[in-house]
Amino acid sequence: MSSQSALSSAIPDTAQVFAATISDVEAAYDRISGQVIRTPLFENAAVNAACGARILIKPEMLQHTGSFKFRGASNRVALMSAAERAGGIVAWSSGNHALAISAVAARHGIHATILMPSDAPRAKIEGAERLGGTVRLYDRATEVREEIGADIAARTGAVIIPPYDDPHVIAGQGTVGLELAEQAAALGARLDMALFACSGGGLVAGAATALKARSPATQVFSVEPDGFDDTARSLASGKPERNAPGATTLCDALMVPTPGLLTFPINRALLAGGVAVTDDEVKAAMRLVYDTLKLVVEPGGVTPLAAVLAGKVDATGKTVGVVLSGGNVDPDTYATCIGA
Amino acid sequence: MSSQSALSSAIPDTAQVFAATISDVEAAYDRISGQVIRTPLFENAAVNAACGARILIKPEMLQHTGSFKFRGASNRVALMSAAERAGGIVAWSSGNHALAISAVAARHGIHATILMPSDAPRAKIEGAERLGGTVRLYDRATEVREEIGADIAARTGAVIIPPYDDPHVIAGQGTVGLELAEQAAALGARLDMALFACSGGGLVAGAATALKARSPATQVFSVEPDGFDDTARSLASGKPERNAPGATTLCDALMVPTPGLLTFPINRALLAGGVAVTDDEVKAAMRLVYDTLKLVVEPGGVTPLAAVLAGKVDATGKTVGVVLSGGNVDPDTYATCIGA
Repeated sequence: MSSQSALSSAIPDTAQVFAATISDVEAAYDRISGQVIRTPLFENAAVNAACGARILIKPEMLQHTGSFKFRGASNRVALMSAAERAGGIVAWSSGNHALAISAVAARHGIHATILMPSDAPRAKIEGAERLGGTVRLYDRATEVREEIGADIAARTGAVIIPPYDDPHVIAGQGTVGLELAEQAAALGARLDMALFACSGGGLVAGAATALKARSPATQVFSVEPDGFDDTARSLASGKPERNAPGATTLCDALMVPTPGLLTFPINRALLAGGVAVTDDEVKAAMRLVYDTLKLVVEPGGVTPLAAVLAGKVDATGKTVGVVLSGGNVDPDTYATCIGA
Repeated sequence: MSSQSALSSAIPDTAQVFAATISDVEAAYDRISGQVIRTPLFENAAVNAACGARILIKPEMLQHTGSFKFRGASNRVALMSAAERAGGIVAWSSGNHALAISAVAARHGIHATILMPSDAPRAKIEGAERLGGTVRLYDRATEVREEIGADIAARTGAVIIPPYDDPHVIAGQGTVGLELAEQAAALGARLDMALFACSGGGLVAGAATALKARSPATQVFSVEPDGFDDTARSLASGKPERNAPGATTLCDALMVPTPGLLTFPINRALLAGGVAVTDDEVKAAMRLVYDTLKLVVEPGGVTPLAAVLAGKVDATGKTVGVVLSGGNVDPDTYATCIGA
């Protein structure tokens, strides 16, 4: 396909080239559609009024385990052989990938070791344990999760399922974009733009791949928190940029130092750009979702709506796809964010 | 129809007899189905496990204005003549009916005066004003809202739309039961029982009317807060009972002194019984909904799930329809309820 050729030629310098195609996303959807929730696509008059745009909302906090991550995990685990399953899984995650892997592994009777930062939300750590994952905490400042994971895999034979730098994980997350395109078309809507929360970039890379094929006029944007806008700056410079250490954000799910090796080439080829939002912009969007949609969204999951509300993209009068990507947030944090 | 005959003969002593029929509910649905959201029916493994039952959840907080009340308001207003519309509407409500009437009236360009108790949640008072309603606060202890409303109607020619004692409001709320029966059937599920929050009893009366026709084996229960269990006690004694003054509850939406004149005869004829839940049981259910469903539910709206969780009905191993009827709750109250 021409889009794939264009993508491949744009990234000759990257060793880990993975040119995602719509076929990969479609195959993922065939594989997982019986296991995932086809979350709805809807709009709300108050949200539209607040944004000055037609906002088509896809609430992925209603997905199993409370985030889109269940899609990528389901797709990757479905492809494990019986021998691989016997060896188990090792995964690292700030939380939502941990919940997803724990649940999918348990469903298949596979042992899963999950590496999580010790400062992850309790809801995510306890949730992963409740779902059957064996959680091993690490210190963000002094330990490297990839090294711990590689060591466990070497010792136990476990399969590593990383949160974004995996072709099958990216393709699985891409089914969000596939559904978005199909559901918008069913509403008779033409998506001028679509926004996705971005950490390692798996969701937006997969979704952009689907939208490129199914809704080619749609401009796709990544949304990150201030201080963790590595993808936005990398898209602008054309090469992977790294965040300065020491930044903080409410968006615990979106704290990576640099774009993914597999995801960034895809995003560089397909995205219209990247934007970033402040904690206050995140809180305002969470409060709007609480007041008008009656949905629990986590800070990282609301960043696309925060970006539209704050005018970080030129959405006025346009039709905009907004994925609310997760809803796993501790009650204390949530209360603060909604102004309690 | 035989069910209607049985109902009529059971209540010869009541002046305000309104024998709701499935035809009334079906006609309401034909009238409003293009305006209301057909909320989904779904289940969640964690909720099922917590309840020891198959719980089919209908989330009416996702309805316009955040509660099922939009259905009854839409049906009643649709039947107003042009002359009536010119005279406006007067309604009284603890909150959710206020929001619904304000929104439906605004949609039709009708002026609406809304009487609300001065201790109603700010989310409901400010929401009604934002939607275009003219709110007039009254003191629960010293004023009688029906008298104020009648006075306004007499002076202005406004049509009174009460929150539950109105045949068209009851029929509109009954569309929740119609959808529940249809959606359960589509899932291949046979509803052993269905539970509905109960204040004046309009929702459960309308829904029971629909279920009686569409799912006759389903036992229907009303659920009230402790201290406001007038319907449960009235169903047990066979005659309208009144709550002792001075009780308090988290469930601001479910504080009526006695069952409705139109609704109680229907509920007496159709319900399997009524149960009541404590504030702590309500909080536990709200936390479960927060943790697992990522939905914002208000205290009154979660009472059916609270009743199942607390074993107030014998649901073990059964298939149970649970309507989460609303999600309009102040952030401070919500934070307290979910344990923040």
